[in-house]
Amino acid sequence: MAESSESKLRLIERHIRAFQNFPKEGILFRDICPILKNPACLTAVMDLLEEHVRNNHQQVDLIVGLDARGFLFGPLLAQRLGVGFVLVRKKGKLPGATVSVAYNLEYGKAEVEVQEDAVTAGQKVLIIDDLLATGGTMHAACELMKKQQAEVLGCMVIVELKDLKGTDRLKDQKVFSLIQY
Amino acid sequence: MAESSESKLRLIERHIRAFQNFPKEGILFRDICPILKNPACLTAVMDLLEEHVRNNHQQVDLIVGLDARGFLFGPLLAQRLGVGFVLVRKKGKLPGATVSVAYNLEYGKAEVEVQEDAVTAGQKVLIIDDLLATGGTMHAACELMKKQQAEVLGCMVIVELKDLKGTDRLKDQKVFSLIQY
Repeated sequence: MAESSESKLRLIERHIRAFQNFPKEGILFRDICPILKNPACLTAVMDLLEEHVRNNHQQVDLIVGLDARGFLFGPLLAQRLGVGFVLVRKKGKLPGATVSVAYNLEYGKAEVEVQEDAVTAGQKVLIIDDLLATGGTMHAACELMKKQQAEVLGCMVIVELKDLKGTDRLKDQKVFSLIQY
Repeated sequence: MAESSESKLRLIERHIRAFQNFPKEGILFRDICPILKNPACLTAVMDLLEEHVRNNHQQVDLIVGLDARGFLFGPLLAQRLGVGFVLVRKKGKLPGATVSVAYNLEYGKAEVEVQEDAVTAGQKVLIIDDLLATGGTMHAACELMKKQQAEVLGCMVIVELKDLKGTDRLKDQKVFSLIQY
Protein backbone atom coordinates (compact mmCIF):
# COMPACT_ATOMS: atom_id res chain seq x y z
CA MET A 1 0.00 0.00 0.00
CA ALA A 2 1.24 3.50 -0.83
CA GLU A 3 2.61 5.64 1.99
CA SER A 4 -0.23 8.14 1.72
CA SER A 5 -2.90 5.43 1.93
CA GLU A 6 -1.19 4.05 4.99
CA SER A 7 -1.17 7.44 6.71
CA LYS A 8 -4.84 7.95 5.83
CA LEU A 9 -5.68 4.59 7.43
CA ARG A 10 -3.79 5.54 10.60
CA LEU A 11 -5.69 8.84 10.71
CA ILE A 12 -9.00 6.98 10.41
CA GLU A 13 -7.99 4.43 13.05
CA ARG A 14 -7.26 7.24 15.52
CA HIS A 15 -10.83 8.49 15.01
CA ILE A 16 -12.62 5.27 15.97
CA ARG A 17 -13.48 4.95 19.64
CA ALA A 18 -14.43 1.83 21.61
CA PHE A 19 -17.16 1.81 24.27
CA GLN A 20 -17.66 -1.19 26.48
CA ASN A 21 -21.10 -2.66 27.22
CA PHE A 22 -22.99 -0.63 24.60
CA PRO A 23 -25.73 -1.00 23.49
CA LYS A 24 -25.80 -3.85 26.02
CA GLU A 25 -23.62 -5.82 28.45
CA GLY A 26 -20.75 -7.67 26.80
CA ILE A 27 -20.69 -5.66 23.56
CA LEU A 28 -17.67 -3.56 22.61
CA PHE A 29 -19.11 -0.78 20.45
CA ARG A 30 -16.91 0.84 17.78
CA ASP A 31 -17.93 4.47 17.44
CA ILE A 32 -17.26 6.18 14.12
CA CYS A 33 -18.67 9.59 15.14
CA PRO A 34 -15.20 11.16 15.55
CA ILE A 35 -14.49 10.42 11.87
CA LEU A 36 -17.42 12.64 10.87
CA LYS A 37 -16.35 15.32 13.32
CA ASN A 38 -12.95 15.74 11.62
CA PRO A 39 -13.27 16.90 8.00
CA ALA A 40 -9.76 15.72 7.03
CA CYS A 41 -10.53 12.27 8.41
CA LEU A 42 -13.83 12.01 6.55
CA THR A 43 -12.03 13.11 3.38
CA ALA A 44 -9.46 10.34 3.99
CA VAL A 45 -12.26 7.76 4.28
CA MET A 46 -13.75 8.94 1.02
CA ASP A 47 -10.36 9.01 -0.75
CA LEU A 48 -9.74 5.38 0.17
CA LEU A 49 -13.24 4.17 -0.69
CA GLU A 50 -13.19 6.01 -4.02
CA GLU A 51 -9.73 4.66 -4.83
CA HIS A 52 -10.88 1.13 -4.04
CA VAL A 53 -13.91 1.45 -6.30
CA ARG A 54 -11.95 2.96 -9.20
CA ASN A 55 -9.29 0.24 -8.95
CA ASN A 56 -11.73 -2.66 -8.69
CA HIS A 57 -14.92 -1.85 -10.54
CA GLN A 58 -15.05 -0.63 -14.11
CA GLN A 59 -18.70 0.29 -13.98
CA VAL A 60 -20.84 1.18 -10.99
CA ASP A 61 -24.42 2.34 -11.51
CA LEU A 62 -25.53 3.00 -7.95
CA ILE A 63 -24.34 3.22 -4.37
CA VAL A 64 -26.81 1.62 -1.96
CA GLY A 65 -26.61 2.69 1.70
CA LEU A 66 -28.03 1.11 4.83
CA ASP A 67 -30.22 2.93 7.37
CA ALA A 68 -28.95 4.92 9.24
CA ARG A 69 -25.17 5.13 9.41
CA GLY A 70 -24.71 4.02 5.82
CA PHE A 71 -26.46 7.29 4.96
CA LEU A 72 -23.51 9.19 6.41
CA PHE A 73 -21.04 7.82 3.88
CA GLY A 74 -23.07 6.63 0.89
CA PRO A 75 -24.08 9.95 -0.66
CA LEU A 76 -20.49 11.23 -0.34
CA LEU A 77 -19.16 8.19 -2.20
CA ALA A 78 -21.91 8.42 -4.81
CA GLN A 79 -21.06 12.08 -5.46
CA ARG A 80 -17.35 11.24 -5.77
CA LEU A 81 -18.21 8.63 -8.39
CA GLY A 82 -20.88 10.71 -10.11
CA VAL A 83 -23.58 8.08 -9.60
CA GLY A 84 -26.89 7.94 -7.76
CA PHE A 85 -27.55 6.87 -4.18
CA VAL A 86 -30.34 4.53 -3.08
CA LEU A 87 -31.67 4.14 0.46
CA VAL A 88 -32.26 0.75 2.07
CA ARG A 89 -34.42 1.43 5.11
CA LYS A 90 -35.95 -0.35 8.05
CA LYS A 91 -39.46 -1.55 7.26
CA GLY A 92 -42.18 1.11 7.07
CA LYS A 93 -40.03 4.17 6.40
CA LEU A 94 -40.26 4.37 2.60
CA PRO A 95 -43.37 5.57 0.74
CA GLY A 96 -44.77 4.02 -2.42
CA ALA A 97 -44.32 0.49 -3.73
CA THR A 98 -41.50 -1.27 -1.88
CA VAL A 99 -39.77 -4.64 -1.83
CA SER A 100 -38.63 -6.10 1.47
CA VAL A 101 -36.51 -8.89 2.92
CA ALA A 102 -36.87 -10.24 6.46
CA TYR A 103 -33.93 -11.58 8.45
CA ASN A 104 -33.25 -12.99 11.87
CA LEU A 105 -31.74 -11.04 14.72
CA GLU A 106 -30.42 -12.52 17.95
CA TYR A 107 -33.93 -12.07 19.33
CA GLY A 108 -36.79 -11.71 16.87
CA LYS A 109 -36.77 -10.50 13.29
CA ALA A 110 -36.06 -7.38 11.31
CA GLU A 111 -36.95 -6.31 7.80
CA VAL A 112 -35.25 -4.05 5.28
CA GLU A 113 -36.91 -2.32 2.36
CA VAL A 114 -36.14 -0.51 -0.85
CA GLN A 115 -38.46 1.40 -3.18
CA GLU A 116 -39.45 -0.83 -6.06
CA ASP A 117 -38.35 1.69 -8.70
CA ALA A 118 -35.05 2.57 -7.00
CA VAL A 119 -33.05 -0.20 -8.67
CA THR A 120 -33.69 -1.80 -12.03
CA ALA A 121 -32.70 -5.20 -13.40
CA GLY A 122 -29.08 -5.43 -14.47
CA GLN A 123 -27.83 -2.40 -12.57
CA LYS A 124 -24.46 -2.80 -10.90
CA VAL A 125 -24.54 -1.69 -7.28
CA LEU A 126 -22.16 -1.35 -4.35
CA ILE A 127 -23.65 -1.54 -0.86
CA ILE A 128 -22.20 0.60 1.92
CA ASP A 129 -22.56 0.70 5.69
CA ASP A 130 -20.40 2.02 8.50
CA LEU A 131 -19.64 -1.33 10.12
CA LEU A 132 -19.80 -5.05 9.43
CA ALA A 133 -20.59 -7.22 12.46
CA THR A 134 -22.51 -10.50 11.93
CA GLY A 135 -23.53 -9.31 8.47
CA GLY A 136 -27.24 -9.88 8.98
CA THR A 137 -28.43 -6.54 7.64
CA MET A 138 -25.83 -6.47 4.87
CA HIS A 139 -26.86 -9.95 3.75
CA ALA A 140 -30.53 -8.93 3.72
CA ALA A 141 -29.63 -5.87 1.63
CA CYS A 142 -27.84 -8.14 -0.88
CA GLU A 143 -30.95 -10.33 -1.08
CA LEU A 144 -33.03 -7.23 -1.65
CA MET A 145 -30.83 -6.23 -4.59
CA LYS A 146 -31.02 -9.75 -6.03
CA LYS A 147 -34.81 -9.63 -5.75
CA GLN A 148 -34.63 -6.56 -8.01
CA GLN A 149 -32.23 -8.45 -10.32
CA ALA A 150 -29.49 -5.95 -9.65
CA GLU A 151 -25.88 -7.14 -9.63
CA VAL A 152 -24.13 -6.62 -6.29
CA LEU A 153 -20.51 -5.79 -7.11
CA GLY A 154 -19.49 -5.73 -3.47
CA CYS A 155 -20.10 -4.61 0.09
CA MET A 156 -18.08 -1.79 1.62
CA VAL A 157 -17.71 -0.76 5.26
CA ILE A 158 -15.41 1.47 7.26
CA VAL A 159 -15.02 -1.01 10.14
CA GLU A 160 -15.10 -4.82 10.14
CA LEU A 161 -15.39 -6.84 13.35
CA LYS A 162 -13.56 -9.98 12.26
CA ASP A 163 -14.62 -12.12 15.26
CA LEU A 164 -18.25 -11.91 14.25
CA LYS A 165 -17.54 -13.53 10.88
CA GLY A 166 -19.72 -11.28 8.75
CA THR A 167 -17.74 -12.31 5.67
CA ASP A 168 -18.82 -15.94 6.20
CA ARG A 169 -22.43 -14.84 5.96
CA LEU A 170 -21.54 -12.80 2.86
CA LYS A 171 -19.45 -15.54 1.26
CA ASP A 172 -20.86 -14.89 -2.22
CA GLN A 173 -19.81 -11.23 -2.00
CA LYS A 174 -16.64 -9.21 -2.20
CA VAL A 175 -16.33 -7.40 1.12
CA PHE A 176 -14.04 -4.40 1.47
CA SER A 177 -13.30 -2.78 4.82
CA LEU A 178 -10.88 -0.01 5.75
CA ILE A 179 -10.20 -0.96 9.39
CA GLN A 180 -10.42 -4.43 10.93
CA TYR A 181 -10.65 -5.45 14.59
CA MET B 1 -32.09 34.93 -7.86
CA ALA B 2 -29.53 34.10 -10.55
CA GLU B 3 -30.69 32.12 -13.56
CA SER B 4 -28.54 29.13 -12.64
CA SER B 5 -29.90 29.00 -9.09
CA GLU B 6 -33.42 29.12 -10.49
CA SER B 7 -32.74 26.21 -12.84
CA LYS B 8 -31.18 24.22 -10.00
CA LEU B 9 -34.31 24.75 -7.90
CA ARG B 10 -36.52 23.58 -10.76
CA LEU B 11 -34.34 20.46 -11.15
CA ILE B 12 -34.70 19.74 -7.42
CA GLU B 13 -38.46 20.34 -7.50
CA ARG B 14 -38.83 17.78 -10.30
CA HIS B 15 -37.14 15.20 -8.05
CA ILE B 16 -39.52 15.45 -5.10
CA ARG B 17 -42.49 13.08 -5.22
CA ALA B 18 -45.73 13.20 -3.28
CA PHE B 19 -47.40 10.10 -1.82
CA GLN B 20 -50.85 10.29 -0.33
CA ASN B 21 -51.77 8.67 2.99
CA PHE B 22 -48.19 7.85 4.03
CA PRO B 23 -47.12 7.02 6.70
CA LYS B 24 -50.80 7.21 7.66
CA GLU B 25 -54.22 8.29 6.41
CA GLY B 26 -54.49 11.98 5.61
CA ILE B 27 -50.76 12.68 5.34
CA LEU B 28 -49.22 13.81 2.03
CA PHE B 29 -45.64 12.56 2.18
CA ARG B 30 -42.93 14.43 0.26
CA ASP B 31 -40.33 11.93 -0.88
CA ILE B 32 -36.79 13.19 -1.46
CA CYS B 33 -35.34 9.81 -2.54
CA PRO B 34 -35.28 10.76 -6.25
CA ILE B 35 -32.92 13.66 -5.42
CA LEU B 36 -30.37 11.20 -4.10
CA LYS B 37 -30.84 8.92 -7.07
CA ASN B 38 -29.80 11.66 -9.53
CA PRO B 39 -26.21 12.81 -8.96
CA ALA B 40 -26.70 16.13 -10.81
CA CYS B 41 -29.73 16.89 -8.65
CA LEU B 42 -27.89 16.10 -5.42
CA THR B 43 -25.04 18.33 -6.60
CA ALA B 44 -27.58 21.11 -7.24
CA VAL B 45 -28.91 20.76 -3.67
CA MET B 46 -25.40 21.01 -2.29
CA ASP B 47 -24.51 23.98 -4.52
CA LEU B 48 -27.50 25.93 -3.22
CA LEU B 49 -26.99 25.01 0.42
CA GLU B 50 -23.28 25.84 0.25
CA GLU B 51 -23.99 29.14 -1.50
CA HIS B 52 -26.54 30.05 1.17
CA VAL B 53 -24.10 29.31 3.97
CA ARG B 54 -21.23 31.23 2.35
CA ASN B 55 -23.48 34.25 1.71
CA ASN B 56 -25.02 34.32 5.17
CA HIS B 57 -22.58 32.97 7.73
CA GLN B 58 -19.03 34.19 8.10
CA GLN B 59 -17.99 31.39 10.42
CA VAL B 60 -19.48 27.93 10.80
CA ASP B 61 -17.81 25.42 13.12
CA LEU B 62 -20.04 22.39 12.69
CA ILE B 63 -22.91 20.97 10.68
CA VAL B 64 -25.37 19.07 12.86
CA GLY B 65 -27.62 16.53 11.13
CA LEU B 66 -30.81 14.86 12.31
CA ASP B 67 -31.37 11.09 12.35
CA ALA B 68 -31.86 9.62 9.73
CA ARG B 69 -32.46 11.69 6.58
CA GLY B 70 -30.37 14.62 7.80
CA PHE B 71 -27.48 12.16 7.58
CA LEU B 72 -27.95 12.02 3.81
CA PHE B 73 -27.17 15.71 3.30
CA GLY B 74 -25.22 16.84 6.37
CA PRO B 75 -21.84 15.19 5.73
CA LEU B 76 -21.90 16.43 2.10
CA LEU B 77 -22.47 20.01 3.24
CA ALA B 78 -19.83 19.68 5.97
CA GLN B 79 -17.27 18.44 3.43
CA ARG B 80 -18.12 21.31 1.07
CA LEU B 81 -17.50 23.78 3.90
CA GLY B 82 -14.47 21.94 5.29
CA VAL B 83 -16.01 21.54 8.75
CA GLY B 84 -17.03 18.62 10.95
CA PHE B 85 -20.38 16.84 11.10
CA VAL B 86 -22.18 15.92 14.31
CA LEU B 87 -25.00 13.37 14.64
CA VAL B 88 -28.19 14.08 16.56
CA ARG B 89 -29.83 10.70 17.08
CA LYS B 90 -32.95 9.18 18.48
CA LYS B 91 -32.50 8.18 22.13
CA GLY B 92 -30.34 5.14 22.83
CA LYS B 93 -28.33 5.05 19.60
CA LEU B 94 -25.18 6.91 20.68
CA PRO B 95 -22.51 5.40 22.95
CA GLY B 96 -20.71 7.22 25.77
CA ALA B 97 -21.89 10.25 27.73
CA THR B 98 -24.83 11.92 26.02
CA VAL B 99 -27.16 14.87 26.52
CA SER B 100 -30.81 14.54 25.55
CA VAL B 101 -33.95 16.62 25.05
CA ALA B 102 -37.48 15.20 25.16
CA TYR B 103 -40.30 16.61 23.05
CA ASN B 104 -43.97 15.91 22.42
CA LEU B 105 -45.28 14.11 19.38
CA GLU B 106 -48.90 13.92 18.31
CA TYR B 107 -49.16 10.80 20.44
CA GLY B 108 -46.57 10.31 23.15
CA LYS B 109 -43.02 11.58 23.41
CA ALA B 110 -39.70 11.32 21.63
CA GLU B 111 -36.17 12.14 22.66
CA VAL B 112 -33.10 13.26 20.71
CA GLU B 113 -29.52 12.90 21.85
CA VAL B 114 -26.03 14.11 21.09
CA GLN B 115 -22.69 12.93 22.46
CA GLU B 116 -21.61 15.23 25.25
CA ASP B 117 -18.22 15.91 23.69
CA ALA B 118 -19.54 16.42 20.15
CA VAL B 119 -20.19 20.13 20.56
CA THR B 120 -18.41 22.56 22.85
CA ALA B 121 -19.53 25.89 24.35
CA GLY B 122 -19.39 28.78 21.90
CA GLN B 123 -19.27 26.70 18.73
CA LYS B 124 -21.35 28.02 15.86
CA VAL B 125 -23.52 25.32 14.33
CA LEU B 126 -26.00 24.89 11.50
CA ILE B 127 -28.63 22.17 11.86
CA ILE B 128 -29.76 20.26 8.77
CA ASP B 129 -32.61 17.88 8.01
CA ASP B 130 -34.38 16.84 4.82
CA LEU B 131 -37.77 18.32 5.65
CA LEU B 132 -39.42 20.75 8.05
CA ALA B 133 -42.98 19.84 9.07
CA THR B 134 -44.21 20.88 12.55
CA GLY B 135 -40.62 21.52 13.60
CA GLY B 136 -40.77 19.33 16.72
CA THR B 137 -37.53 17.46 16.12
CA MET B 138 -35.72 20.53 14.79
CA HIS B 139 -36.76 22.53 17.83
CA ALA B 140 -35.55 19.77 20.15
CA ALA B 141 -32.22 19.71 18.30
CA CYS B 142 -31.87 23.48 18.82
CA GLU B 143 -32.55 23.01 22.54
CA LEU B 144 -29.91 20.29 22.60
CA MET B 145 -27.36 22.65 21.11
CA LYS B 146 -28.28 25.40 23.60
CA LYS B 147 -27.84 22.91 26.44
CA GLN B 148 -24.27 22.49 25.18
CA GLN B 149 -23.96 26.30 24.97
CA ALA B 150 -23.42 26.13 21.24
CA GLU B 151 -24.73 28.95 19.06
CA VAL B 152 -27.32 27.84 16.50
CA LEU B 153 -26.76 29.98 13.41
CA GLY B 154 -29.74 28.52 11.62
CA CYS B 155 -31.78 25.51 10.51
CA MET B 156 -31.60 24.24 6.94
CA VAL B 157 -33.91 21.86 5.11
CA ILE B 158 -34.53 20.84 1.53
CA VAL B 159 -38.33 20.89 1.83
CA GLU B 160 -40.57 23.03 4.04
CA LEU B 161 -44.27 22.23 4.53
CA LYS B 162 -45.58 25.76 5.13
CA ASP B 163 -49.05 24.67 6.35
CA LEU B 164 -47.54 22.94 9.36
CA LYS B 165 -45.98 26.19 10.61
CA GLY B 166 -42.62 24.77 11.64
CA THR B 167 -41.13 28.27 11.47
CA ASP B 168 -43.54 29.41 14.21
CA ARG B 169 -42.14 26.75 16.50
CA LEU B 170 -38.62 27.83 15.48
CA LYS B 171 -39.34 31.55 15.78
CA ASP B 172 -35.99 32.29 17.46
CA GLN B 173 -34.13 30.68 14.55
CA LYS B 174 -33.27 31.52 10.99
CA VAL B 175 -34.85 28.82 8.84
CA PHE B 176 -33.69 28.25 5.28
CA SER B 177 -35.47 25.91 2.89
CA LEU B 178 -34.94 25.24 -0.80
CA ILE B 179 -38.46 24.16 -1.76
CA GLN B 180 -41.71 25.18 -0.07
CA TYR B 181 -45.16 23.57 -0.31
